[in-house]
Amino acid sequence: MPDMLTKEDVTAHIIAAKKSAGMTWEGIADSIGMSPVWTHSAAMGMNAMPMDKAEALASLLNLPNGAAEVLAESPTKVWTQSVPTDPCIYRFYEIVGVYGPTLKALIQEKFGDGIMSAIDFDMTVERVENPKGDRVEVKMSGKYLGYNSW
Amino acid sequence: MPDMLTKEDVTAHIIAAKKSAGMTWEGIADSIGMSPVWTHSAAMGMNAMPMDKAEALASLLNLPNGAAEVLAESPTKVWTQSVPTDPCIYRFYEIVGVYGPTLKALIQEKFGDGIMSAIDFDMTVERVENPKGDRVEVKMSGKYLGYNSW
Amino acid sequence: MPDMLTKEDVTAHIIAAKKSAGMTWEGIADSIGMSPVWTHSAAMGMNAMPMDKAEALASLLNLPNGAAEVLAESPTKVWTQSVPTDPCIYRFYEIVGVYGPTLKALIQEKFGDGIMSAIDFDMTVERVENPKGDRVEVKMSGKYLGYNSW
Amino acid sequence: MPDMLTKEDVTAHIIAAKKSAGMTWEGIADSIGMSPVWTHSAAMGMNAMPMDKAEALASLLNLPNGAAEVLAESPTKVWTQSVPTDPCIYRFYEIVGVYGPTLKALIQEKFGDGIMSAIDFDMTVERVENPKGDRVEVKMSGKYLGYNSW
Amino acid sequence: MPDMLTKEDVTAHIIAAKKSAGMTWEGIADSIGMSPVWTHSAAMGMNAMPMDKAEALASLLNLPNGAAEVLAESPTKVWTQSVPTDPCIYRFYEIVGVYGPTLKALIQEKFGDGIMSAIDFDMTVERVENPKGDRVEVKMSGKYLGYNSW
Amino acid sequence: MPDMLTKEDVTAHIIAAKKSAGMTWEGIADSIGMSPVWTHSAAMGMNAMPMDKAEALASLLNLPNGAAEVLAESPTKVWTQSVPTDPCIYRFYEIVGVYGPTLKALIQEKFGDGIMSAIDFDMTVERVENPKGDRVEVKMSGKYLGYNSW
Amino acid sequence: MPDMLTKEDVTAHIIAAKKSAGMTWEGIADSIGMSPVWTHSAAMGMNAMPMDKAEALASLLNLPNGAAEVLAESPTKVWTQSVPTDPCIYRFYEIVGVYGPTLKALIQEKFGDGIMSAIDFDMTVERVENPKGDRVEVKMSGKYLGYNSW
Amino acid sequence: MPDMLTKEDVTAHIIAAKKSAGMTWEGIADSIGMSPVWTHSAAMGMNAMPMDKAEALASLLNLPNGAAEVLAESPTKVWTQSVPTDPCIYRFYEIVGVYGPTLKALIQEKFGDGIMSAIDFDMTVERVENPKGDRVEVKMSGKYLGYNSW
Amino acid sequence: MPDMLTKEDVTAHIIAAKKSAGMTWEGIADSIGMSPVWTHSAAMGMNAMPMDKAEALASLLNLPNGAAEVLAESPTKVWTQSVPTDPCIYRFYEIVGVYGPTLKALIQEKFGDGIMSAIDFDMTVERVENPKGDRVEVKMSGKYLGYNSW
Amino acid sequence: MPDMLTKEDVTAHIIAAKKSAGMTWEGIADSIGMSPVWTHSAAMGMNAMPMDKAEALASLLNLPNGAAEVLAESPTKVWTQSVPTDPCIYRFYEIVGVYGPTLKALIQEKFGDGIMSAIDFDMTVERVENPKGDRVEVKMSGKYLGYNSW
Repeated sequence: MPDMLTKEDVTAHIIAAKKSAGMTWEGIADSIGMSPVWTHSAAMGMNAMPMDKAEALASLLNLPNGAAEVLAESPTKVWTQSVPTDPCIYRFYEIVGVYGPTLKALIQEKFGDGIMSAIDFDMTVERVENPKGDRVEVKMSGKYLGYNSW
Repeated sequence: MPDMLTKEDVTAHIIAAKKSAGMTWEGIADSIGMSPVWTHSAAMGMNAMPMDKAEALASLLNLPNGAAEVLAESPTKVWTQSVPTDPCIYRFYEIVGVYGPTLKALIQEKFGDGIMSAIDFDMTVERVENPKGDRVEVKMSGKYLGYNSW
Repeated sequence: MPDMLTKEDVTAHIIAAKKSAGMTWEGIADSIGMSPVWTHSAAMGMNAMPMDKAEALASLLNLPNGAAEVLAESPTKVWTQSVPTDPCIYRFYEIVGVYGPTLKALIQEKFGDGIMSAIDFDMTVERVENPKGDRVEVKMSGKYLGYNSW
Repeated sequence: MPDMLTKEDVTAHIIAAKKSAGMTWEGIADSIGMSPVWTHSAAMGMNAMPMDKAEALASLLNLPNGAAEVLAESPTKVWTQSVPTDPCIYRFYEIVGVYGPTLKALIQEKFGDGIMSAIDFDMTVERVENPKGDRVEVKMSGKYLGYNSW
Repeated sequence: MPDMLTKEDVTAHIIAAKKSAGMTWEGIADSIGMSPVWTHSAAMGMNAMPMDKAEALASLLNLPNGAAEVLAESPTKVWTQSVPTDPCIYRFYEIVGVYGPTLKALIQEKFGDGIMSAIDFDMTVERVENPKGDRVEVKMSGKYLGYNSW
Repeated sequence: MPDMLTKEDVTAHIIAAKKSAGMTWEGIADSIGMSPVWTHSAAMGMNAMPMDKAEALASLLNLPNGAAEVLAESPTKVWTQSVPTDPCIYRFYEIVGVYGPTLKALIQEKFGDGIMSAIDFDMTVERVENPKGDRVEVKMSGKYLGYNSW
Repeated sequence: MPDMLTKEDVTAHIIAAKKSAGMTWEGIADSIGMSPVWTHSAAMGMNAMPMDKAEALASLLNLPNGAAEVLAESPTKVWTQSVPTDPCIYRFYEIVGVYGPTLKALIQEKFGDGIMSAIDFDMTVERVENPKGDRVEVKMSGKYLGYNSW
Repeated sequence: MPDMLTKEDVTAHIIAAKKSAGMTWEGIADSIGMSPVWTHSAAMGMNAMPMDKAEALASLLNLPNGAAEVLAESPTKVWTQSVPTDPCIYRFYEIVGVYGPTLKALIQEKFGDGIMSAIDFDMTVERVENPKGDRVEVKMSGKYLGYNSW
Repeated sequence: MPDMLTKEDVTAHIIAAKKSAGMTWEGIADSIGMSPVWTHSAAMGMNAMPMDKAEALASLLNLPNGAAEVLAESPTKVWTQSVPTDPCIYRFYEIVGVYGPTLKALIQEKFGDGIMSAIDFDMTVERVENPKGDRVEVKMSGKYLGYNSW
Repeated sequence: MPDMLTKEDVTAHIIAAKKSAGMTWEGIADSIGMSPVWTHSAAMGMNAMPMDKAEALASLLNLPNGAAEVLAESPTKVWTQSVPTDPCIYRFYEIVGVYGPTLKALIQEKFGDGIMSAIDFDMTVERVENPKGDRVEVKMSGKYLGYNSW
């Protein structure tokens, strides 16, 4: 088979380079002028990078030739656990299970018959100080898409 | 079998009363002094109401005798679709699939080895105006819980 | 439990009325000025009807009181067979299995990194005459949605 | 084990050659006088190529010896995700879930008791300009097959 | 809900009538001039009957009003066990598991790249005497359908 | 680990040898005096060959040392797709889903309470000419096995 | 729907009658001259009774009219838990998981390429005294069936 | 990674040695003074061997250094098919499905509320001559374990 | 069907009686001289009660005639969610997923090749005060069972 | 791909070093001043080690360079069997299935509407002597987390 760099290869190079450079995802994201959520996701092969950002990342982390092109390709988004087992990820799955019908009811009450887009979408993760224990704050924003009648 | 009011019965009464009263979830939540997300979730039988809130809801919607007690009981939270089919709910499942590892990586970068609690947790859903199309904004806040070493 | 008309009830009334009136889905759709695909789907409880169309349908088929309101509600779209068994529906599932990566590759070649919306979406089904045997022609049209970078 | 070129090998060679030649699927399809959907699908190992087309593709992309024979073999069509996770492919799965019973009802209304063939079948994907956002248009055409009575 | 005869109702009536009349499936099939396999399948709600055969069956077994119309409707073919448990049915599932690739290879060797239709299809079940123990002989015949290139 | 020839290795050798010899399964089967269905199935590692047939096949295709012994071993019959995806194989799965209860009912009507053996079993695949399109004819024959009472 | 006694009804009648008569399965089996395993299984609707045994059971337990005919019908054997949860049944499932390949290897060593029939089959359950704790002894006997070559 | 002999490696060595020595499982079991079922199962890595038996087996079959220690380790018992496909193993699964409730009922009738242990357990497989065809006889013996009340 | 009290009926009666009497599970358990874990479990139909305890419970809660006999019957232990969704139960499932191999390794280190019985088993749940937040303490005790060699 | 030490590699090194040193998990845990449960779990890659403990373990077992850093990383906790097959682990799964609702009921009775944390959690495994057979005692302790109302 021809020898081609894959998204998995590039992810492995990024992780190794990040580790040896002692950088954080936040630091990497800042360096290329993008958000940490999006930057990590693209580095994991779950989003495509615009070419200039891909080149900035390749240059920052000294990735091998061809890595920028691979980062710019549209990924096939695959996850193999339909119910995630890692506790940190499972809790978000649980929130969808418990509050899914609530999210739906309130979106429809505020907007009409439609959904929140997961494509025209962005997200942040923040640490919020709190005397009873700091809190994780996740903010999701997606364009409202109304169903068609035709 | 003895004749007892179930959580499903109470939910059906709430939906019928809400419809005939022409109320919104936001209006109901305001009336009992709680948030819309939590109020809807408790009305669906996915959260337990403190007794005073249960009584306020029962009184507001003229629910049958015993409904407040039922609303105050701890629910067994069950969902039968491990992958939800409704598009509005599925998009949130998809976000967990695509961004789950990212949420985990950033929580660990900001806090250490741990998770966001789905129990000491709250959430809001807002409509944010936007000239390119209004956006759904979902904000989740959960206490950070660090893993134990022992 | 309170006695409320459900989407399932209204669907059953529509089917019974259609049968006794000897109408077709195409005829019903024409009468309310909508397309057959959308009309059938809404009648099955898989789409919400604008109130005027719901009332037109209720009047056309002499549906019981409250049916129009129910037709106008946002449905929860549920299917229980993750792989459909009916041969006529399975063949479409098979097409998605066989050609899914092809649809993805060509959408990305023509548009960039994104998807075809299943929400801002419409569809037609036509019979096309052909000397070797008439053909079913299904035309789907959905708005292109490009992924965000942020 | 004997050393044989597999469909997976040939697909990898095609992708590498397409990338280094800077070609599109549409351009490749034109060069061999076939449609883009079918050409991509056969290149992915999901359809068998007539020998002349296989040779044309092998010659166009300078594929290794034996590739044309492999492209001409009947593939075993396998997909491992019964519910696809990639959002671009999932939306088509969702359309089958939501509109499957509608497709069935209208095919039967227009033709009788039968199905649309997924074998004697062709498909196109087009970009249609639209001031509110360009649209993806997918056209499927399959021979109607009526059930036997015997 | 309106009171309508379903396919399940008609099947139950057929079974009850067959039992009280002491008839066999072969006898019923002969009476309406069709084969036993097809007749049983249609009686179970897995095939649609042409109207004249439906009326013949309704008359033979004195089925309730409306039964013939129901027998003539296109069924939605549903089975809920993706792997059947009944030993008599499981053995056929096992044959498909063990010999599926063999059936595929020989169909392609004899016909080319295509399949045996399960729609333009008929089947018989016979008892064949054999000194070592009588044998069940199942004969399936389906039209060959070749894949399209386009 | 010790270096041993596996059933998978032998299958790969058979496929390679068949291809370079330009033989058909029917031709191979004839050469060793067995049927095409059984020969293909044993070559795929889904049936064990009597030693003389294994040696005949090894000699015909010039298989490596030890191949005959491996062909004569009892295989462990494994399939990993409980619902097959390849359309040619799926159609047989579909036939079992649609006609399984019918096969059971007619076997019991003709024989009593029992099953068709899938072990004392044989099968043929034939091409039958037909002016409306040639047909695939599959004939299965299995010994009737009656349930025990004890 | 016509009012017919089902296998489930007859099972419920048997359990109620057994309880009010204070009988054991062993006692019931003795009374009709059959083994306890087979008698319980047929009473649960998992085996068909010869007519004389069905009548003996119906008479012994004073079952309603038509029960003997129902007991004599061929059952459709269905279980809904592919992995049983009840600990007493699960342990047998576990034995099949752990020792399945061993059972296969020894059957093939002693008999050749074939299986133990689960149709021409009988089984006993005995209590065997043992100073370290009495033991359950299950004895299964099934006819050896050798695979065909053809 | 460090180079360590695994249970899979030792199993492969045993199979290769048994084959080249032309031994049977029964012969191997006799040589080490244990039963064939247990010996095969331990050789497959599904049971741990006492050290003296492990050494006897290693010496008998001339297994590589360290093999005895590996045979003596507690295995993790894993099977990946929750429903086995091999016909010889499936028949035992089928017996558990059909007769599971019967085994449970008779164990409880003879012993009380409890189960047969699958840990303090032994099993034999025998060939029993029979003029109508020899039979496989499987005898399982497990300690009765009664449920606790506390 | 005969009218019989089921385990589900008795559970419903217990829950209703407990609620109207304002009792706790701990109080009920004390009254009958058993532990809360076992008492709740038996009340839910997941354990069988010795007859005297069943009668004590029936008398304490004024259960209907026949309830004690039903409480004393061996239950069939069924759970339908192979992965539980309720967060309180899921956390225990997660502990088994994360720490299962650890529990196994330590049991084997301390005892040898064997398991902890889930039959000869008892459990307590306690509240333990803690200045950083009270803790749930669950203590499980099960008899060690060593694997047999034979 | 870059050459990096993974958690799987480190686990393999630990197991090999433990074996050649003849140590126990208890001994290793003592040496680094932590509990056996946590130490084993972290060694298996299911918990992250504080850096000083990671270095202590690396030094004790002479692990390769970089191993301590890997032991200190947050793991992604994955298990692939949603129902474990190993009997020693399955019994704990069974306990969750049988006693899950009981654990939930008693936690809620003692604490209110909430759960036991699986994150702020610790566990011990002990051998308790008993004349009827020694017992495994597992003690779990997790912080109570109460649900939020907001």
